[in-house]
Order: sequence, then C-alpha cells, then structure tokens
Amino acid sequence: MTESGKPILYSYFRSSCSWRVRIALALKSIDYETIPVNLIKDGGQQFSEEFQALNPMKQVPALKIDGITICQSLAIIEYLEETRPTPRLLPRDPKKRASVRMISNLIAGGIQPLQNLSVLKEVGQEKQLAWAQKTISSGFNALEQILQSTAGKYCVGDEVSMADLCLVPQVANAERFKVDLTLYPTISHINKSLLALEAFQVSHPSRQPDTPPELRA
Amino acid sequence: MTESGKPILYSYFRSSCSWRVRIALALKSIDYETIPVNLIKDGGQQFSEEFQALNPMKQVPALKIDGITICQSLAIIEYLEETRPTPRLLPRDPKKRASVRMISNLIAGGIQPLQNLSVLKEVGQEKQLAWAQKTISSGFNALEQILQSTAGKYCVGDEVSMADLCLVPQVANAERFKVDLTLYPTISHINKSLLALEAFQVSHPSRQPDTPPELRA
Repeated sequence: MTESGKPILYSYFRSSCSWRVRIALALKSIDYETIPVNLIKDGGQQFSEEFQALNPMKQVPALKIDGITICQSLAIIEYLEETRPTPRLLPRDPKKRASVRMISNLIAGGIQPLQNLSVLKEVGQEKQLAWAQKTISSGFNALEQILQSTAGKYCVGDEVSMADLCLVPQVANAERFKVDLTLYPTISHINKSLLALEAFQVSHPSRQPDTPPELRA
Repeated sequence: MTESGKPILYSYFRSSCSWRVRIALALKSIDYETIPVNLIKDGGQQFSEEFQALNPMKQVPALKIDGITICQSLAIIEYLEETRPTPRLLPRDPKKRASVRMISNLIAGGIQPLQNLSVLKEVGQEKQLAWAQKTISSGFNALEQILQSTAGKYCVGDEVSMADLCLVPQVANAERFKVDLTLYPTISHINKSLLALEAFQVSHPSRQPDTPPELRA
C-alpha cells in the first residue's frame, strides 16, 4: 500500500488478467494506485529483479493491499470479495457460486494461459495466430454451451459476477486474435451488456495510465 | 448422483486435476463412485458425445453432486468446502486463504494447463519433453520462492489446504517429465509429508479403479 494506505496494483494496460482485477476494484469502489509493468519494453519489465521479488511468477497483476501482496487474479478477486463484500461478485447460493467459479476457471485456467505472451513466444511467430485462435475457439465453444444453462443477463443469472470479470477481457483477446465472434452469440451478447457498465469502461485497456496515446479511447 | 445418492466422479487415474478432487473427497470422507474416462483409449473418451454433454471442455474431472455437475477442479473443491466444510481446506484468516488460492491458481492456471496432454500434442513429440520440463521448472522456481514465506509443515502453515491438493499431483507430473526435484527442497519436503497421509494415498493414481495392472501399487 502507499503511505496514504491505498492499495497498489501492478498492472499492464493490455493484460487480460490485470483487467479482471481492475474491474473488481472499480465495482467495489476501491481507490487504488497503478504501477505499470510494461510486458514488452526493456525485454519485459516483469523480469526485473525488483518485480520478481514481488511476484516470482513474473506476471501481472499483483496487488499490494492490507500489508500483503497477492498474485493470481482469481486469488486477488476472492480476497477482495471476502474483505470488501459489497457489491458481491459471488452469488449467495453455493450451486450458483460453483457455476461462477467453473466459468472463471475455464477462462483463467483453460483459455488464457494457453494464449498468453510467453506461450506464444515459444510457439513462434509463424504459428502463433493459428494457435491462439484454436485455443480461444475451443474454449469459447465449451463456454457458449455452458452459458445456455447458467446465463441470464450476465454469465450466471442477472447479477455481475467474477465470471463476467473473466469473460470481457477474454473476448477482447479473442478480438485481437481475430476470432469469429458471430459463432458465439451468447458470449457476444453478454459481453456487450457488460461493456455498457461503468466499471468495465473505466478499467478498459484503452483508458489506463500506461495506455499508449495511439490506443487511448 | 447414483440412485443411492452417491456423488459420481468422472476421472482418469493419471489426470493430475482429477487427483486433486480425489484428495478432497478422501479428506472430507465423501463416499463416491468413479466413472473412468480414458483420455488415451478410443482416441480419447473425453471426446465422446456423451461426455461432451457433461463437460463441453472435454476434460476430467467432472463431479455430479447434489443434482448438479461441476467441472474445473478448483471450482469443485471450493463447492465441497462450502457444502462440506469439515475438515477445512481453506484457513479461516482471509490473508492465509489468499495464499492458498494464490498457490492453487499458480499450479492450476500457471503450470498444469501448459503441460497437459492436448498442449503437448500440439507441441509435437520431439519437443514435448523439453516444453513440459521448462514449464514445470519455471513454475516450481516461483513456487519454491513463495513457499519460503507461506509454508509450515505444508504449503500454507501446518494445516492441509487446497494448495497441497494441487502440489502433490503437480510434483507427480514433474517426476513423469524427469524434472530435477533436488532443485526444489521445500516443494520436495512438503510433498513427502503429504504423501504420508492416507487421503493422498487412497487417491493416488496407482490405486484407482482404472489404473492398469502394470501400474498398480
């Protein structure tokens, strides 16, 4: 935390995992400071000794809050939910909470890690677009089907949940990798509804302190 | 659930994600039935129409319980924790819970997905051993460092938690891929302590209904 007691978010404007946490902070009206970690510049600032001491996984986001540092976006969001429960990002009903966590983990464990920067580097420039498209499409095929039984206005029912915080940044990644989203009408529809909400707008990659001028909204 | 009301676990003996859930079920003394899903045989039974209807992600584990089907191992474990809280797999203190979830997600999102069967197929036979070793080593380097500040007898303090349910199966994968575990003394030590517990033994890949005779303990 800063001397003023504000939490500090280590974030990169285009990181989908950072965006998830930014949405949670916005929804819960938690005032925070951003320290940008540029994943490209200087060979990747996440590899600096200073940052590695903070997060040995060399990934954003990391959140300094209440005297501790938490890494892994879902762990951060669950902590915020337990310590700042209003508005809730997990439903009261355990079965609905299970749906929220299932969708969140499907995206955070089943899609995003396979199309993140470090994996695409390994895959090589030639194959990386096809690789990312295949990964995202395969996950979205499953998600579109699951949403048929869980979704209302949003991923699970009519309240914004942690699952929605995962969905919107993943759809943005899908757009960057030119995935045909017309194949996923439910995902697209929910994404559109969520992007109309203020918390999803202020946290958007196009409006961060480290967003390059040419990408600013 | 079966007619007798028992939960049904769709599992593959060697799947590290299935093992996580088997440990949770054993620790919480939840009686269940196993339906094996062979990820290799018949081109992969997870691709059958029947199984896809159950889990569109075409992955094990899936758990039928209380009239619902839950996929994604961490979502299943969190549901079991909320509905069958004894013994607890998450500490009471929110900061310690954050550590448990951080380590669980580091493994479940940051290591395992990058060395699972479907990714290794994409990577190709020649490169897959090096790929898996690099992924696991990179994750274990981070984890070894994190454990310096969280571990007691187990990953977080002296009580078995969800983090431990993720650790042991991941170490087994590391052994299969011949990762040099002497580089990770804390991980190795905790793993050894956990493997001495009955819940980790009865759930072990060498003791499942679908374990091939030549691999049985």
